[in-house]
Amino acid sequence: MTKSRLEAFSDGVIAIIITIMVLELKVPGDASLTALYYDLRLKFACYLLSFVYLAIYWNNHHHMLHSTRRVNGAILWANMHLLFWLSLVPFVTGWVGETDFARGPTVMYGVVMLLAAIAYYILQRSILRAEGPDSLLARAIGRDLKGKLSPVFYLLAIPAAFVSPWISGAIFAIVALIWLVPDRRIERAIEQHPQ
Amino acid sequence: MTKSRLEAFSDGVIAIIITIMVLELKVPGDASLTALYYDLRLKFACYLLSFVYLAIYWNNHHHMLHSTRRVNGAILWANMHLLFWLSLVPFVTGWVGETDFARGPTVMYGVVMLLAAIAYYILQRSILRAEGPDSLLARAIGRDLKGKLSPVFYLLAIPAAFVSPWISGAIFAIVALIWLVPDRRIERAIEQHPQ
Amino acid sequence: MTKSRLEAFSDGVIAIIITIMVLELKVPGDASLTALYYDLRLKFACYLLSFVYLAIYWNNHHHMLHSTRRVNGAILWANMHLLFWLSLVPFVTGWVGETDFARGPTVMYGVVMLLAAIAYYILQRSILRAEGPDSLLARAIGRDLKGKLSPVFYLLAIPAAFVSPWISGAIFAIVALIWLVPDRRIERAIEQHPQ
Amino acid sequence: MTKSRLEAFSDGVIAIIITIMVLELKVPGDASLTALYYDLRLKFACYLLSFVYLAIYWNNHHHMLHSTRRVNGAILWANMHLLFWLSLVPFVTGWVGETDFARGPTVMYGVVMLLAAIAYYILQRSILRAEGPDSLLARAIGRDLKGKLSPVFYLLAIPAAFVSPWISGAIFAIVALIWLVPDRRIERAIEQHPQ
Repeated sequence: MTKSRLEAFSDGVIAIIITIMVLELKVPGDASLTALYYDLRLKFACYLLSFVYLAIYWNNHHHMLHSTRRVNGAILWANMHLLFWLSLVPFVTGWVGETDFARGPTVMYGVVMLLAAIAYYILQRSILRAEGPDSLLARAIGRDLKGKLSPVFYLLAIPAAFVSPWISGAIFAIVALIWLVPDRRIERAIEQHPQ
Repeated sequence: MTKSRLEAFSDGVIAIIITIMVLELKVPGDASLTALYYDLRLKFACYLLSFVYLAIYWNNHHHMLHSTRRVNGAILWANMHLLFWLSLVPFVTGWVGETDFARGPTVMYGVVMLLAAIAYYILQRSILRAEGPDSLLARAIGRDLKGKLSPVFYLLAIPAAFVSPWISGAIFAIVALIWLVPDRRIERAIEQHPQ
Repeated sequence: MTKSRLEAFSDGVIAIIITIMVLELKVPGDASLTALYYDLRLKFACYLLSFVYLAIYWNNHHHMLHSTRRVNGAILWANMHLLFWLSLVPFVTGWVGETDFARGPTVMYGVVMLLAAIAYYILQRSILRAEGPDSLLARAIGRDLKGKLSPVFYLLAIPAAFVSPWISGAIFAIVALIWLVPDRRIERAIEQHPQ
Repeated sequence: MTKSRLEAFSDGVIAIIITIMVLELKVPGDASLTALYYDLRLKFACYLLSFVYLAIYWNNHHHMLHSTRRVNGAILWANMHLLFWLSLVPFVTGWVGETDFARGPTVMYGVVMLLAAIAYYILQRSILRAEGPDSLLARAIGRDLKGKLSPVFYLLAIPAAFVSPWISGAIFAIVALIWLVPDRRIERAIEQHPQ
């Protein structure tokens, strides 16, 4: 019960974050397609990137909580902490888009992504502590290579923006691609150990 | 469980998309009813059209997932892909409304609708692949005439905007009407084969 | 199942409508409390009125669907039709508030409320048709005095705005108060006939 | 059933309130990190404070309704009353942020927080009246020290803003910290008396 309401609340918040981002895509003043192209090219690329990131977070969050049996106060607050950093994604997305991947906004994009990744890691640890080392989730996560690599990539992307924000953008895109590659670990573990 | 959370998330996103569109209807500066009429006539028509489209998508999505028994990673991502294109509906609706059905915005409206229709088709294929050819859903969809006709109409509406955006607008309205005509196929199939 | 997803979608849309209205309350330019008072007095009164109306709609919608056993295509679309008119509430609320209850906006507020009330009535008829005349809902609704009186009040409020928008405002407030008075009909009927 | 829909609606509204607050964080005109720092320092602090407050409200609301067995009309409306005051949080947060904790906005922030705390108290009384004095919830709440202290703190913070808004800000932060300290009363009571 507690778990299903936590899922519902998180779903709601992530659904709203992913959708209100579109409000940052300001309608171009001009009605021409060329205006759209020059105005929105980068804003759109940034929108797509953040949409994919948030979809990955929802997807992982969903799988993680699927294998969770009970929720305590520490998990509730670790989850709120994650939602806090995710709630800043529309802000940094809008800033990066508006300034065409300028240095400052790109740095902040990386910082928010890094803090969200750390918050996700803390949430995962809180759940694992409640579930125990032999739990379905512990087996499913295993070494968690992707989860450990992502913050390293963000830590590279932040200083890289001082060389060129395009390098950072490329790193962000690579992280998204790594996560998009189907990760059958948890799915497989669940199938092998049906509840 | 996975399915119900996917439904909840999709419901949330579609509910938000359909509702934040109203934020694009800017309050007229003047307090007179004639100002409202001249300012908002076309914006309102466009709002209504997009509202109906999104309601149809929700309705079809709902029926399709009702007949789905299990959800895998491919379905999750095909669903996200559909939500991505639908999330752009408020943007193109606002642009078309602001420019009184100018050519460029009308073309983009058609492009977003076309890509959403293709995304819906991909989602349907992913579900059918998981459910199998003899599934309730496969029987319910049958030849799927409407689903196959809609992209053709959008493909006509896009170049038609270069002749006159009004032709495109008429085509969009026709597609909406085709879908509004009650489609009892799936409902009937479900009634005949109660789960 | 269909019913619970319809409830979830309607809850989502009404929750979003009731919440994004606050975005129409623009922060005053000045930081003084007197600026707030003169700027926002009427905007706030209008916000409160619309909040109460939407809360009443949610409440009635909730009770009505609670007594509904099955949902068909006609009910789905009658529900969408209701949500459409409700989705325009933030727009008219913002317009009335911005123009300090000017005549045109007040007329439009009444028109949207009238159309929402009619849409609610249509939805109720669609459900009653599916449930049958001896259903729990039919008994619970009974003569439905409030439901029949509200449109009459709105029909009075619309022309009254041409005399003085304050009369219309008073009528809107009276309708809200009529509904706020606890209506134990449905609750009592449910208690007497537990499912 | 009624209870779960009330929870879903409240979750939806709180999720939207907590998320649309980010729309008040306007993207800085400049692309530099120093502009971000000077522009947004206080806005961000205020955003964080309101986020924590809303998260606490969700958390407490969730625990309170978890121990509730049935919902009546009085509870439904007491809940709407609470949601009304919470819906004004983005407005006062934006105003305080925009004016860098000016006196007037800080006073209003305190007033909204006070009224929300009173609304929460009324909701709690309504539920306790329905549940009875020997209910699980009554035992779990006990003396409710935090709930009784919070309004006192807000009552201090409001006049304190006329001396210095920083004192009020400090008081708001202290109240948030008091609530963040894990409160195991309800959790423990539930564990001892599993339903």
